[in-house]
Amino acid sequence: MVGIFLRTLGLRASPRRPWPRGAPSSTTSRLSPAGSRSPFLARRPGPSVASARKLRAGADGPRSSPAGAPERLPFSRVTEDDLAFFREILPGRAITDPDLMESGNVDWLKSVRGSSELLLRPQTTGEVSQILRYCHGRNLAVNPQGGNTGLVGGSVPVYDEIILSTSLMNNIINFDHISGILTCQAGCVLENLSLYAEERDYIMPLDLGAKGSCQIGGNVATNAGGLRLLRYGSLHGTVLGLEVVLADGEALDCLATLRKDNTGYDLKQLFIGSEGTLGVITTVSILCPRKPSSVNVVFLGCETFEQLLKTFQLCKGMLGEILSAFEFLDSECMRLLNTHLKLPNPISDCPFYIVIETSGSDLTHDAEKLHNFLEEAMTSSLVTDGTVATEDSKIKALWSMRERVTEALTHDGFVYKYDISLPVERIYRLVTDMRERLGDRAKSVVGYGHVGDGNLHLNITSPAEDPALLAAVEPFVYEWTAGCQGSVSAEHGLGLKKRNYIYYSKPSRAVALMGNIKAMLDPKGILNPYKTLPDDLKRLAR
Amino acid sequence: MVGIFLRTLGLRASPRRPWPRGAPSSTTSRLSPAGSRSPFLARRPGPSVASARKLRAGADGPRSSPAGAPERLPFSRVTEDDLAFFREILPGRAITDPDLMESGNVDWLKSVRGSSELLLRPQTTGEVSQILRYCHGRNLAVNPQGGNTGLVGGSVPVYDEIILSTSLMNNIINFDHISGILTCQAGCVLENLSLYAEERDYIMPLDLGAKGSCQIGGNVATNAGGLRLLRYGSLHGTVLGLEVVLADGEALDCLATLRKDNTGYDLKQLFIGSEGTLGVITTVSILCPRKPSSVNVVFLGCETFEQLLKTFQLCKGMLGEILSAFEFLDSECMRLLNTHLKLPNPISDCPFYIVIETSGSDLTHDAEKLHNFLEEAMTSSLVTDGTVATEDSKIKALWSMRERVTEALTHDGFVYKYDISLPVERIYRLVTDMRERLGDRAKSVVGYGHVGDGNLHLNITSPAEDPALLAAVEPFVYEWTAGCQGSVSAEHGLGLKKRNYIYYSKPSRAVALMGNIKAMLDPKGILNPYKTLPDDLKRLAR
Repeated sequence: MVGIFLRTLGLRASPRRPWPRGAPSSTTSRLSPAGSRSPFLARRPGPSVASARKLRAGADGPRSSPAGAPERLPFSRVTEDDLAFFREILPGRAITDPDLMESGNVDWLKSVRGSSELLLRPQTTGEVSQILRYCHGRNLAVNPQGGNTGLVGGSVPVYDEIILSTSLMNNIINFDHISGILTCQAGCVLENLSLYAEERDYIMPLDLGAKGSCQIGGNVATNAGGLRLLRYGSLHGTVLGLEVVLADGEALDCLATLRKDNTGYDLKQLFIGSEGTLGVITTVSILCPRKPSSVNVVFLGCETFEQLLKTFQLCKGMLGEILSAFEFLDSECMRLLNTHLKLPNPISDCPFYIVIETSGSDLTHDAEKLHNFLEEAMTSSLVTDGTVATEDSKIKALWSMRERVTEALTHDGFVYKYDISLPVERIYRLVTDMRERLGDRAKSVVGYGHVGDGNLHLNITSPAEDPALLAAVEPFVYEWTAGCQGSVSAEHGLGLKKRNYIYYSKPSRAVALMGNIKAMLDPKGILNPYKTLPDDLKRLAR
Repeated sequence: MVGIFLRTLGLRASPRRPWPRGAPSSTTSRLSPAGSRSPFLARRPGPSVASARKLRAGADGPRSSPAGAPERLPFSRVTEDDLAFFREILPGRAITDPDLMESGNVDWLKSVRGSSELLLRPQTTGEVSQILRYCHGRNLAVNPQGGNTGLVGGSVPVYDEIILSTSLMNNIINFDHISGILTCQAGCVLENLSLYAEERDYIMPLDLGAKGSCQIGGNVATNAGGLRLLRYGSLHGTVLGLEVVLADGEALDCLATLRKDNTGYDLKQLFIGSEGTLGVITTVSILCPRKPSSVNVVFLGCETFEQLLKTFQLCKGMLGEILSAFEFLDSECMRLLNTHLKLPNPISDCPFYIVIETSGSDLTHDAEKLHNFLEEAMTSSLVTDGTVATEDSKIKALWSMRERVTEALTHDGFVYKYDISLPVERIYRLVTDMRERLGDRAKSVVGYGHVGDGNLHLNITSPAEDPALLAAVEPFVYEWTAGCQGSVSAEHGLGLKKRNYIYYSKPSRAVALMGNIKAMLDPKGILNPYKTLPDDLKRLAR
């Protein structure tokens, strides 16, 4: 039907969104070069509990860098008495073995390393309450941890915070077959929930590259965006209820499983995207959409970004309710895919490429809509070439052109990565402005991302770490973004790494109010310290 | 195509969702009988500003009834100096004429009457800031007011609060044709925004019966649900940014026009559904979906509520992405429509009736999906009769069977109204349990509402106000709802009337936290006092 585009795809069918565990790619954020002077990377596993008390608060010293570690706050240190308490309430689940602790102390990018000596693995909300009540009384800092797949250093300890892992809280509590509302513990792995829902003819409203490892509690805590946001919206809309344990150990029950509830302030919203700094999410209820019976993927080429945006508009009109993704990459990305991963371009060379996904309930209807859209897009010369996939392996192959860009970049050199949200019509201007600004100083300046969500992934490569290049990029990139009322963190959160950039996207009154909320909910600041809020508010945690 | 159902519709095409202004229906909530002893109804317009100072705080005395007015809090009273200030900053827009004040002092249901003597009509955020800064300094209470279409007494003053009307803040600031993001002042009337969006091939993500009067700021402040929630989700997902003036007059800029922004806590969420008690919303940015080019409505009959739920499931699967409403009414509703409004049943008599709406981008595809669904529903005996409408007038006629139930009820006697959210499979059980409990004591016990959202409108009529009947209904209805983890206010909010019922749906820890948030944002409690939070927290406003 869409023969005009159809070619035999010679692509290797690779897993759709690979997220290797335990073997992170060599992609390094600018904070995490191998052999960097970063205090996190350089730090070895900490001293034993017995010797830990000798460590002076602030031994690492204050950092002037906005991304550097702030001074350790004067929390208590874990004693043998504390250990005895935790071992009693969590028999066999209060981990101190350094080997077992290793993966909890280091983030997935290996860019931040903490020196925690205690990892707790509660199974119930009651146990989380007991832990936090105790830590609150003892002034012990706590790092809540889900799948530890975060990209901004928010999911690992910075110093010796106790790691509170939700990994054993992985029970599905309820699934309502009529409404599609799923209620489960925070530690359920997203992929397991997806499989569970799909067996019941539903899907999860979010899908991420990290789904094999990330946990739903962590997804909610970081307000994860992902690949289905265009269609199903953000977690602020799809999460219907949360149970959260507050810093003092009290459980806050906002676990409604209702689509509508206007009885007072919607407190659960506070915890969505709070990165574990306001409470520990223990249970989630979430609205699952019906599983689509028909999925198509199209790969298109455009001459200009204006045509790409017009294609997006046409697509929204003609594909309407079946449009589920509209992603793009530029010709520089394609060059890297060709060069480093030997992935052939499935269509002819173009300055811009689009990946469109449709999901619907009727194969024939969806194919017809797609056909009509493609015909119109070609007739009006918005796109110059394209190919369509309906089979699963080919769908995966086309998706890989978008999803393996990150991997291709890691082979190109040292990578400076930015995750920017902009008004959709400004998305690519930042890339061209940056390219012009940097000239020959950068090896590659590439742009790709979620056009449908106004989310640009701007990546700049260099043969090696290059402070002069960095100085040309920052704060320019943040100022440029702020000038368009954009967001300096579209979907990754602020965590440790980006906490001090918050003022580029939020006015100081708003940041001060965030500080007040933190102080109200966690007056001792024991929950995930050094994260999300900027250092000039850290007094609140004292 | 669906001839099996198609009948000539003899229905009168009436406006789809009538919402008479200035002539409220005789529907009275239990708090607002004509000639009631309610202090609100009995209260006459207050004394002049000059004599107002003689009124003693608490002149009306404390009420023991959960819905009665709490004692007047010790706010200042408006003086001539205050008037002079407001007249200077708002020339011609500081209203004191009692006739002009009347509509601002009384709610749409005429169930609550305040005695404000000053109505301010700012045009800009700056003016709202000036007003609140002054009121904060002077300890003057303020009642933020949009279209004044609220149903729980949240939108009018209780005593002499200054009315801050957003009616003149009705400018559209920006519309992004690519992303569909609309930015406008809070006082824009929803219907005007709908027309504006539709001219640009978009629609508003919410639609309400009150759309001809209600304002977007008020919609956001009450977290309005409405008829499109099933498809487009709640305002927590579709509102992308807010500008809010806080109690001290400072403007809080959370006016992102981005789909993704994870820089810190999502503060705007706090104000969605806060009913004007935490700040005055001055600007809103909201994501508009594309306008569907094809709309169909089906009216079906079912023998049992179980079959109705199975039809809902079938419908979600087979109509999938084009389903935009799934509403129901019972045979008692149909009897009232027939008896009081002479509306003939468009199909044969059944215990339950369903209204299904589809919205899509392709007429032929939608008709085919509908046909297949209807054939399956009939073949499997889930529905016993039905009729389909595709023309606008017939669509309106079928919708009126659902939408005029409220009007029919007003002709049946005194109406006790409940707006309950329940797990969808329990929705109708409450109606049958109530019917059984009340026996002959009630004239009619009817159930209708939004099945798709789990939102039941339970209405009980009686020839006249009947305290004994009320005692049989309450607190039973709230306890029953609480027993199912339901919500005692699905979409109307708590306002003045329901504030003390909050504990049926929220644990005391959550309510206490709401009180802390109120105290943090509005330490003097000047914003919309006596609303949303229960009386046992009102000390926070002192």
